Amino acid sequence: MANEKITLAHGAGGKMSAALMRDVILPAFDNPVLDVLHDGAKLATSGRLAFTTDSYVVRPLFFAGGNIGKIAVCGTVNDLAMTGAVPRYLSCGLILEEGFPVEDLSRIVRTMRETADAAGVAIVTGDTKVVEHGKADGIFINTAGVGELIAGIDIAPQNVRPGMKVLLSGCIGDHAAAILAGRHGIEIPESLTSDCAPLAGLTQAVLKAAPHTAVLRDPTRGGVAAVLNEIAAAAQVGVLIDEDALPIREAVRGICDMLGFDPLDLANEGKCIAFVPAAEADAALAAMRAHPYGKDACIIGETTEEAPGQVGLRTALGGIRIVDLPLGSLVPRIC
Amino acid sequence: MANEKITLAHGAGGKMSAALMRDVILPAFDNPVLDVLHDGAKLATSGRLAFTTDSYVVRPLFFAGGNIGKIAVCGTVNDLAMTGAVPRYLSCGLILEEGFPVEDLSRIVRTMRETADAAGVAIVTGDTKVVEHGKADGIFINTAGVGELIAGIDIAPQNVRPGMKVLLSGCIGDHAAAILAGRHGIEIPESLTSDCAPLAGLTQAVLKAAPHTAVLRDPTRGGVAAVLNEIAAAAQVGVLIDEDALPIREAVRGICDMLGFDPLDLANEGKCIAFVPAAEADAALAAMRAHPYGKDACIIGETTEEAPGQVGLRTALGGIRIVDLPLGSLVPRIC
Repeated sequence: MANEKITLAHGAGGKMSAALMRDVILPAFDNPVLDVLHDGAKLATSGRLAFTTDSYVVRPLFFAGGNIGKIAVCGTVNDLAMTGAVPRYLSCGLILEEGFPVEDLSRIVRTMRETADAAGVAIVTGDTKVVEHGKADGIFINTAGVGELIAGIDIAPQNVRPGMKVLLSGCIGDHAAAILAGRHGIEIPESLTSDCAPLAGLTQAVLKAAPHTAVLRDPTRGGVAAVLNEIAAAAQVGVLIDEDALPIREAVRGICDMLGFDPLDLANEGKCIAFVPAAEADAALAAMRAHPYGKDACIIGETTEEAPGQVGLRTALGGIRIVDLPLGSLVPRIC
Repeated sequence: MANEKITLAHGAGGKMSAALMRDVILPAFDNPVLDVLHDGAKLATSGRLAFTTDSYVVRPLFFAGGNIGKIAVCGTVNDLAMTGAVPRYLSCGLILEEGFPVEDLSRIVRTMRETADAAGVAIVTGDTKVVEHGKADGIFINTAGVGELIAGIDIAPQNVRPGMKVLLSGCIGDHAAAILAGRHGIEIPESLTSDCAPLAGLTQAVLKAAPHTAVLRDPTRGGVAAVLNEIAAAAQVGVLIDEDALPIREAVRGICDMLGFDPLDLANEGKCIAFVPAAEADAALAAMRAHPYGKDACIIGETTEEAPGQVGLRTALGGIRIVDLPLGSLVPRIC
């Protein structure tokens, strides 16, 4: 089918639907739990579970460092990881636009499989719908995920106290910058690609080193600014970060200057923010840095009793500027 | 926000996104497990689990007997129920088109909540994306679901043997006929509405009465014809059904005659097909009929050693016609 295009018949539940499953989708996801004879998968799980979902509408579909399939797996794996869970199972809901090339679909589902393998999860159930040409935008993907919560770990914003350290696992804004460069035709160095990556290994290492970690969060839509504001508001602490400590690539700064963005607002797809008791902060930092996805990790700030609910940025010049939640549509369809 | 329209900013992760959550979506789904401070929900489950997903792209969004939100809950609840599980938790992934009326969104999420309550499930996690005007079609909904498999029940097509009875829980084609009537402006009697309903109560009653039930399946896309063909192929049995036994409303027959459809191919959203050992068939039938969603249940046929993998329809005149899997796009976007 590689040279074909998706038709409405591929989504109608008849022979064409069955052929698309058999020839394209099931071979990519093939695993022992994916039971083609059921509309639901039977899971082998133990302990308490975490459950999450995200839909992915990123444009362009293929970009430096990944494609929509890679994000669709990483994003949901990461949401599970940030709850303090070991991700185990994913679902995959595809909405395809009539006319979408089967070849592109094949590439995307193969990437999903490779990323799932790398993240240690299995795609065990799914669904495919087709809508008329002009009623979608190529492909939208929803993944939901089930993970096993790690015993003894309690991740909750309410656990954040003043005096905790705020850790960041690496450079910010790479994903958004790669997408923006792709959209606007801006030339970027080869070293700047989306940071899209599955973080469950990194979060498990952090939680082993720092079991009293209060919060893990991946700064996707809304960026670091949104995560810090949410946690400050939920925990009613102040969050004070150092501008000098923020790891930002020159190329990302350049794109921000060119397009008028603040790197703190930019989406990341392979970064983790951790709120860790001061006593465990060095251990958590060492665990991040020992992981391939956390080599550039650093402590970017701390929580304070002052200014509860607010996020402050201590600038290079020594002043403090308030970091607000971005208002609206900075970069639409970033994930 | 009731008079507003969805903008790209509502999906960008900033203040507008937060307001949409706070004012429209979270109040509708509010429950103890839905933790607004997490991207993932923590579940209380026991035993073995079933996991499933479906995306919903039905047009029109509002139709006789329901709307896309009702289908989005019923469809996933029913997929869980058909695996022999008690549905427990749902996720909700929304993809909204820029310009979609917030009022319609409010109606849809309220319907999702009401339907979830009726089905005994909680919507515990979710995600909302917005795409540009013209890049989607109002609203697409994905739901994934987690259910607890009922101990001692083993639903699997491989368990189907020759000599089993095939039960159907009521009239076929109501959903597709209601949708088709809506699309083509065909007048239908008030009594003909979509059969969209959550079937977990009915399937649990059937499994209690007939614990050796081999297969439960809801004939959605592809209709009864698709389900019977899939089971015949998977179990390598013949399936022989009686035309006279098939419960079909006159109004549905009329729409089929007018538009050239076979009722066996039409989608249902509140019907269940069960393959039950002959010894338990009467008990299963009684359990169906005792349930509000199974009042018109009947035995429509049986499995045979002859013609493995094939579905035959014994016509009113005594002949047998082969019922094939529909080829393609009978009724696009039926669910």
